[in-house]
Amino acid sequence: MPSKYLDNDSLKFLLYDVHQLQDVLDRDYFSDYDQEAVGMFLDSVKDFSDKELFPYFQEMDADPARFEDGKILTHPQVGVMMKKGGEMGLISGIFDYEDGGLQLPTMVHTAATYIQDAANNHLPGYTGLTLGAAELIIHFGNDHLKQAYTPPMLRGEWGGTMCLTEPQAGSSLSDITTSASPTEKGYYKIKGQKIFISAGDHEHVDNVVHLVLARIEGAPSGTKGISLFVVPKKRINEDGSLIPNDVVTAGDFQKMGQKGYCTTHLMFGEKEDCQGWLVGQAHNGLRYMFMMMNGARIGVGRGAAAIVMAAYQASLEYAQERAQGRKLTSSGKKDVQQEQTLIINHPDVRRMLLLQKAVAEGSLSLVLLASKYHDLSRTAESPEEKERYHQMLELLTPVVKTYPSEMGATAVSNGLQVLGGYGFCSEYILQQYHRDIRIFSIYEGTTGIQSLDLLGRKMTMNGGAAVQLLSKEIMSTIANASQYDDLKPYALKLKEKLQLTQEVMGFLLEFAKRGDFQRFTADANLFMEFFSNIVLAWLWLDMANQAKQALLTGDKKFSEDFYESKIHTMRFFYKYELVKTTSLAEALVDPDVLTIPTEKKVFA
Amino acid sequence: MPSKYLDNDSLKFLLYDVHQLQDVLDRDYFSDYDQEAVGMFLDSVKDFSDKELFPYFQEMDADPARFEDGKILTHPQVGVMMKKGGEMGLISGIFDYEDGGLQLPTMVHTAATYIQDAANNHLPGYTGLTLGAAELIIHFGNDHLKQAYTPPMLRGEWGGTMCLTEPQAGSSLSDITTSASPTEKGYYKIKGQKIFISAGDHEHVDNVVHLVLARIEGAPSGTKGISLFVVPKKRINEDGSLIPNDVVTAGDFQKMGQKGYCTTHLMFGEKEDCQGWLVGQAHNGLRYMFMMMNGARIGVGRGAAAIVMAAYQASLEYAQERAQGRKLTSSGKKDVQQEQTLIINHPDVRRMLLLQKAVAEGSLSLVLLASKYHDLSRTAESPEEKERYHQMLELLTPVVKTYPSEMGATAVSNGLQVLGGYGFCSEYILQQYHRDIRIFSIYEGTTGIQSLDLLGRKMTMNGGAAVQLLSKEIMSTIANASQYDDLKPYALKLKEKLQLTQEVMGFLLEFAKRGDFQRFTADANLFMEFFSNIVLAWLWLDMANQAKQALLTGDKKFSEDFYESKIHTMRFFYKYELVKTTSLAEALVDPDVLTIPTEKKVFA
Repeated sequence: MPSKYLDNDSLKFLLYDVHQLQDVLDRDYFSDYDQEAVGMFLDSVKDFSDKELFPYFQEMDADPARFEDGKILTHPQVGVMMKKGGEMGLISGIFDYEDGGLQLPTMVHTAATYIQDAANNHLPGYTGLTLGAAELIIHFGNDHLKQAYTPPMLRGEWGGTMCLTEPQAGSSLSDITTSASPTEKGYYKIKGQKIFISAGDHEHVDNVVHLVLARIEGAPSGTKGISLFVVPKKRINEDGSLIPNDVVTAGDFQKMGQKGYCTTHLMFGEKEDCQGWLVGQAHNGLRYMFMMMNGARIGVGRGAAAIVMAAYQASLEYAQERAQGRKLTSSGKKDVQQEQTLIINHPDVRRMLLLQKAVAEGSLSLVLLASKYHDLSRTAESPEEKERYHQMLELLTPVVKTYPSEMGATAVSNGLQVLGGYGFCSEYILQQYHRDIRIFSIYEGTTGIQSLDLLGRKMTMNGGAAVQLLSKEIMSTIANASQYDDLKPYALKLKEKLQLTQEVMGFLLEFAKRGDFQRFTADANLFMEFFSNIVLAWLWLDMANQAKQALLTGDKKFSEDFYESKIHTMRFFYKYELVKTTSLAEALVDPDVLTIPTEKKVFA
Repeated sequence: MPSKYLDNDSLKFLLYDVHQLQDVLDRDYFSDYDQEAVGMFLDSVKDFSDKELFPYFQEMDADPARFEDGKILTHPQVGVMMKKGGEMGLISGIFDYEDGGLQLPTMVHTAATYIQDAANNHLPGYTGLTLGAAELIIHFGNDHLKQAYTPPMLRGEWGGTMCLTEPQAGSSLSDITTSASPTEKGYYKIKGQKIFISAGDHEHVDNVVHLVLARIEGAPSGTKGISLFVVPKKRINEDGSLIPNDVVTAGDFQKMGQKGYCTTHLMFGEKEDCQGWLVGQAHNGLRYMFMMMNGARIGVGRGAAAIVMAAYQASLEYAQERAQGRKLTSSGKKDVQQEQTLIINHPDVRRMLLLQKAVAEGSLSLVLLASKYHDLSRTAESPEEKERYHQMLELLTPVVKTYPSEMGATAVSNGLQVLGGYGFCSEYILQQYHRDIRIFSIYEGTTGIQSLDLLGRKMTMNGGAAVQLLSKEIMSTIANASQYDDLKPYALKLKEKLQLTQEVMGFLLEFAKRGDFQRFTADANLFMEFFSNIVLAWLWLDMANQAKQALLTGDKKFSEDFYESKIHTMRFFYKYELVKTTSLAEALVDPDVLTIPTEKKVFA
């Protein structure tokens, strides 16, 4: 195992300096926290991750969660994650004091979960889904549900899940058929099957509280007829004891990666004895679920970003220790009398490492920024301010979900390549990161779905208001960078790319205006790649600004090399990554239409 | 399991029509074969692959080759592969009659092995390495070695390997330390360790013949002091029986993929009783080995191309059966009253399928072309002709090794994505292809090494003669396509890209001229991506030409849809793939130097 999974200095730099956690801490709601308290909390999470998460990462892969004799067996460390996670506030952190929470900023919670994800991405999902399920109950459930369910969930004694997917309804939630029949006793009788339920069942909690999308009899078709229910594995008997609620685990899904994170197939109401309680209003379930879903999407981006970071640390460590080959001499030959050089000195290895660094830190920056927008929106001092941050968060959410997952997979693959043949061997950890990260572009809406959301909805909502707000932020970073001679060329380049974005949108919107939505969004995936690349270039310029300022003012928490390396990586991002937007734009405005079905048999 | 792993029509189209196998069959050396005989041979290979390879593909992954009690255990089908492979001429096919071969064209052997690779990529390596090892003995060994070793190898009774890598010498072969001490009895005493030896040991053959790189005592340092030895697992006793030769399997490497293909760690001469026989002249071993290595590199490209094909077939089958979601209406909404549509009707799914088709068939075309050049070179009627095809083959070899491996991995990942959550599940085959293909960009020289070979050696050898020869071929395809109004724009685009290649090379060569080889090759990886993309665009235009001609002349072996789909996929390649060369060229001529080590600590 490598010795490190995290560059803690870069996390601190991004959290405190680049994204100025202080802006958030200044809000009244967070007045009990200062940077010192946050620092102590994050240190304790790091310590927990060092001791309880990272050491079990490889063995959880070798000994996967599995279904045996009607039970899901998971690694004992799942129990530690739930119990200690509950104790440490890793589940309750972001909730209001009155709901049993700690009123921690989301930024801090994100940083804390990122550390855990980087240490062992198979575990934080158990607490994360519990948090998400509790959040829905707290926000939309009645007092009875809140009081009965959330306290043991926040303590990590009970788990939680989100149950959306059914065999015939994955990306297409309008086709959900799980049914809910009202009874006179206030509960509904639930019947149906749900698949791909992460953390759906295990022995390390006393109960699992499922947040289930179902259709009340007679409900409208499509997504407008979907309601949300609390459906516990064990319901609370009149005497307060827990009794089975006819939620049966039918099996599990064995997977290529994230093997320690169980994925289950659940049957509700096979014996007609499954009780569920409506959350909020009938037929509003999908809207409620999207609160959890938006959080989950940020969480997916965070998890992927963390895997990239961990993989980068492992491949960097290898490259700094492994000697192989020699520098080319001026004749293009090698001098075999020389000692072998460390592979980190080969330009192509450095390229692969810098790519990982650029994606890892850029993705982390993106995830923290989204969390900051969330904090500033929820504690906004005016409705306008609330709306401003909310809009930018909405716009960024599909990007946060997608960029770390997609470019992250590429970065991790480069990390594996650094190790050569060893990278493919089970003994080395890179291949596990490579397998684990592959699910992230599928979780909680595939890249295709996210891309439709970005181009088809978020870019155009409120007349493009969100893009305009974000552009203002980007222009401010450009203005800032333009003060420094060595950053100015990059500022200009980014400005050109903003202009290019307008040109591309101008071209595409013509189709939307004509009502040809299929053509408008046919290349949404390319647009996602184009737009997120530019967002990342912005975030890297922002990091370079911050580094430059520290170098010039001498107000340095970190070494000079540290700051120089940020500027160097920004330049790397512009030369090797941002450059791709030229071709992407060229393809996006190409009039050839090749992926919309016609009479022609394309796959003959 | 999906029902198909191969598009046999596209293989035939490429073999007979696009790459005109007949040109090769017309050579005297192959006069015993006509297209009918080749067709029957390939049909028998397909039948063998259907029955003996494909059905075992998933279980070989679930039950990996492994080291137990000092032995390597492999799946019983390894024995079938060796034995039947020997009987069917899958090992001996390409050799001269006088060496026990069948004098089959390499093109046909490549097509046959491609079918096997597509059916089960864990198996053909066993026969393939046996072939490669036999080839070295036949070409460079003395009569004694040829007579003693090759007959049982060609029959599949004995296996063969290539032993290059040592723990301290992977990409850097000059650092090999395995030693060979001459004895008075004609053999050498071999001592050393070799790792990552594919097919290095198993119970399904009577002997394994290792072709081992070692250093004779007192040899010059570096690659010039490396010799090649035949070192059998069991040597032939005076009475003709086989006795142990002190070659001990120390362990194996458990891997992320290709789990049925054993990867071993061998110890030679631990008891000072390992005998090896020099092949050819002393100190020429690396040169000899490169004959096998060049073949192996083509073989790696072929294997990767085959995996892409198989993955494409599996994801296409899924997309044609799975209903999910609906077409967008003119308001950008979906009409939930409609039946769900098959996912193949979603533009983004079609994009992912077309990408796979473009990479799968393009890669196959590339591999067959390289085999054709090999056939035309080895049977050339003049030294000039021999040299011409040899040069183009040399130039293409790193591309053939790399493009199917690198873009193939991307294509397979898109195939997995088509299946959504199921793509990540062990029950579906896509995740296995995803894991299996990941080794191909590492095998037999990583992408980094291939890229240095392409840019640093092949592009400039003989004053750039190879590129000029290839450019002529490309210009001929462009001229051909320019006759057709609908292909002409693509011909013009390709011509622009040839011009762009010259500009990029002009920029880069300045560094070589100044003796700055490190700068010259620092972005070799990008150049590989740039150049191979253009080569593939050429091959797709060539396919489109052939399809167009068939449509116009009415001389159609396949359906009209089949030919139209080739032209459609060519257009797809130009819009979505060739377009990337714009950005790649922009990065290649970017003056910023970011990956060459300096005093600055970049990874601070």
